Amino acid sequence: MTYHSTPLRIAIAGLGTVGGTTLHLLQKHAEIYAARCKRPVQVVAVSARDKTKHADKALEGIRWENDPIALATADDVDLVVETIGGSEGTAKALVESALASGKNVVTANKALLAEHGMALAQLAEKHNVTLAYEAAVAGGIPIVKTLREGLAANEVKKVVGILNGTSNFILSHMQDLGSDFEEALEEASRLGYAEADPSFDIDGIDAAQKLSLITSLAFGCRPNYQKIYVEGIRHINKLDMYSAAELGYNIKLLGITHRTANGAIEQRVHPCMLPANSPVGVDDVYNAIVVEGDAVGRLMIEGRGAGGGPTASSIIADICDIARGVSYPVFTVAQSDLKDASFVPMEQLRSAYYMRLAVQDETGVVSDVTRILGDEGISLRSFIQHSHQPEEAVQLLLTTHVTIEAAMNHAIERLANLPAVTQPPTIIRIEEFEE
Amino acid sequence: MTYHSTPLRIAIAGLGTVGGTTLHLLQKHAEIYAARCKRPVQVVAVSARDKTKHADKALEGIRWENDPIALATADDVDLVVETIGGSEGTAKALVESALASGKNVVTANKALLAEHGMALAQLAEKHNVTLAYEAAVAGGIPIVKTLREGLAANEVKKVVGILNGTSNFILSHMQDLGSDFEEALEEASRLGYAEADPSFDIDGIDAAQKLSLITSLAFGCRPNYQKIYVEGIRHINKLDMYSAAELGYNIKLLGITHRTANGAIEQRVHPCMLPANSPVGVDDVYNAIVVEGDAVGRLMIEGRGAGGGPTASSIIADICDIARGVSYPVFTVAQSDLKDASFVPMEQLRSAYYMRLAVQDETGVVSDVTRILGDEGISLRSFIQHSHQPEEAVQLLLTTHVTIEAAMNHAIERLANLPAVTQPPTIIRIEEFEE
Repeated sequence: MTYHSTPLRIAIAGLGTVGGTTLHLLQKHAEIYAARCKRPVQVVAVSARDKTKHADKALEGIRWENDPIALATADDVDLVVETIGGSEGTAKALVESALASGKNVVTANKALLAEHGMALAQLAEKHNVTLAYEAAVAGGIPIVKTLREGLAANEVKKVVGILNGTSNFILSHMQDLGSDFEEALEEASRLGYAEADPSFDIDGIDAAQKLSLITSLAFGCRPNYQKIYVEGIRHINKLDMYSAAELGYNIKLLGITHRTANGAIEQRVHPCMLPANSPVGVDDVYNAIVVEGDAVGRLMIEGRGAGGGPTASSIIADICDIARGVSYPVFTVAQSDLKDASFVPMEQLRSAYYMRLAVQDETGVVSDVTRILGDEGISLRSFIQHSHQPEEAVQLLLTTHVTIEAAMNHAIERLANLPAVTQPPTIIRIEEFEE
Repeated sequence: MTYHSTPLRIAIAGLGTVGGTTLHLLQKHAEIYAARCKRPVQVVAVSARDKTKHADKALEGIRWENDPIALATADDVDLVVETIGGSEGTAKALVESALASGKNVVTANKALLAEHGMALAQLAEKHNVTLAYEAAVAGGIPIVKTLREGLAANEVKKVVGILNGTSNFILSHMQDLGSDFEEALEEASRLGYAEADPSFDIDGIDAAQKLSLITSLAFGCRPNYQKIYVEGIRHINKLDMYSAAELGYNIKLLGITHRTANGAIEQRVHPCMLPANSPVGVDDVYNAIVVEGDAVGRLMIEGRGAGGGPTASSIIADICDIARGVSYPVFTVAQSDLKDASFVPMEQLRSAYYMRLAVQDETGVVSDVTRILGDEGISLRSFIQHSHQPEEAVQLLLTTHVTIEAAMNHAIERLANLPAVTQPPTIIRIEEFEE
């Protein structure tokens, strides 16, 4: 147990909610962290767009830089915290410059890691520094550490997560209040849970970026964000929520990564129907992640996936590791040792499905629908015919036994072409957990 | 990132379920661990009571020692895994001898750590070696790592855990099948979840030992197992389960450690009534731990608390840390820096209560009971009068608002002395979580 007594000198780039809370905690708990790390952890410099907006912060004795890149090359900085965000531009330039200048980097930037993780890992290794990003995946949940260290004994089989708090809030709200997607999105915006442009969250992109990092950590392969099947939650409506409840399911946006029997990896982000007693059932802005390992069995972690405190908690955990002299390659093993995984095409997925389609109330329509499904080898599990008003189209809500996605795609195409079908079918995959 | 390429040489003492699974995984996943640790992790020697019982194990090339202590002093051993168990005798002698011989020790032995943790921490520091015990607390759940590293940014306020799988199985079984304690205990024994002498588990001792380690890690104080209030689950009966369900509660054996506003620590293990939607609701042999930190908010981890695989998962996680050169003092900070916490006497606990008492069906009894509670300043929240048969004693089942434990103790004493009370009152504390 060798400890340094020289301080670890920190620069923070970006003083929004996350950067600001990180600064605040590093000041407030300075003594606690010094005891835990056996050396002082000091903020020596900060940078943000507009200094006048940060009069509320205790910046005495801390150097202000208008140009964040100046932090990356400063002689008195050991570690740069990047909370600017975005996969390109300043954030990328800053992180690259800091690593190239031999500084450790801690970031909450999932987009940057998902897009440029391999190149940054190479840069960090070349300059013998650490690039840590616990805060980039599921906010306050220490999932990077858990996969890399806590479950180091395990061959991981599957990771399933609720990885986007905004989407989870919207779906919980729809379920609890019977509201439709647009209303729930408005409520999320009103509460500050959704951005002005919410597409990043509700279209599954944020969850997919996190999932690509989880896949790499879980399976020792290069992150490959492009190979993830991504589907958001915009098409989920009231009726889906109603059917889910009827059938004993919740609807959640899940990120799933799974090593199949032949070693190929299935990576996907889409809404799922989950049994109400499923191990990932958390509501509101919480995140939850289930890891299945060959030794540990099923491990589940639940916590806040966003917000100043939880994100800063993970940023400072990374800082404490570095202060304590603990360091890992970006994706656990050296980037040259990462495997180039093969990914399972989505058409090969085997899943049970829920399907909704609107049809004209004509004789023979239902038999046309069931015939097409039968043709494609899809067997029905349940069937609800639902109509609010006599003049409205009839909504058919059905669930299937496990089938192959290719067959389902084919069936959807044929169903959409039936003259009596007024609204093309939408599906939600049903995710069951083994006991 | 400096890595050793010399192998880490392991000796395993004890080849029961946990030791045997650890050996098996270290052999089966040898390549995976070598890649993750950047050095081979090899089992070089083992010891167990009776060699003839281990013909099923792949022991070729591994030295057999009849005397486990020989492992502690062997020149070719870097790390000793202790899975013998028990706070005294061979396990203690082995761990002491190994540490004194400059060897790292990994153990699943909560009794040893709870009883002798401080002395062993001193010994480990003196000889500059690691004593790691992730497996001793909640089996496969990486709670030691989470408290020490993942949540290093946080001032922890409270930790609440379901820490004993045997008790949790018994209570789940009673709840699901409406069985009484004795039947559920028999079922647990039949399934191998309960020992021949189950008192260690069902009287809360095992949970208390784990809790003492959690308290130390969460609050940076010396573990003090003796200062924990401990109450087991033997007195819980069918009627309590019935009332809990009626009131929307589950009954769980919880370990709770909590830093109060004045810095004193409340440590207790006892059955609790928990709202059905509470964050620690896991059933069967699973464990669950909720940590409340000032930055992260609420974090919950759920997983298998016992068994070969989960326990070996944690043992090997510790081994991998050591192989990777990562090492911490036993209780995170140097033992000389651990605080001597002050513990809150149980009489000062503020809690809501459920109470069951049997009374003769006489006029005035109920008013006597409510008068005594009122005298003690205890306000009623609910009241059920329950009688199976006319000739049976009437069971009074009531819940109170939050009061002080001293008042409740006084009330219990007075109630027990009422002539019409045929069975002294038993209580279950009600644990509510803040939102």
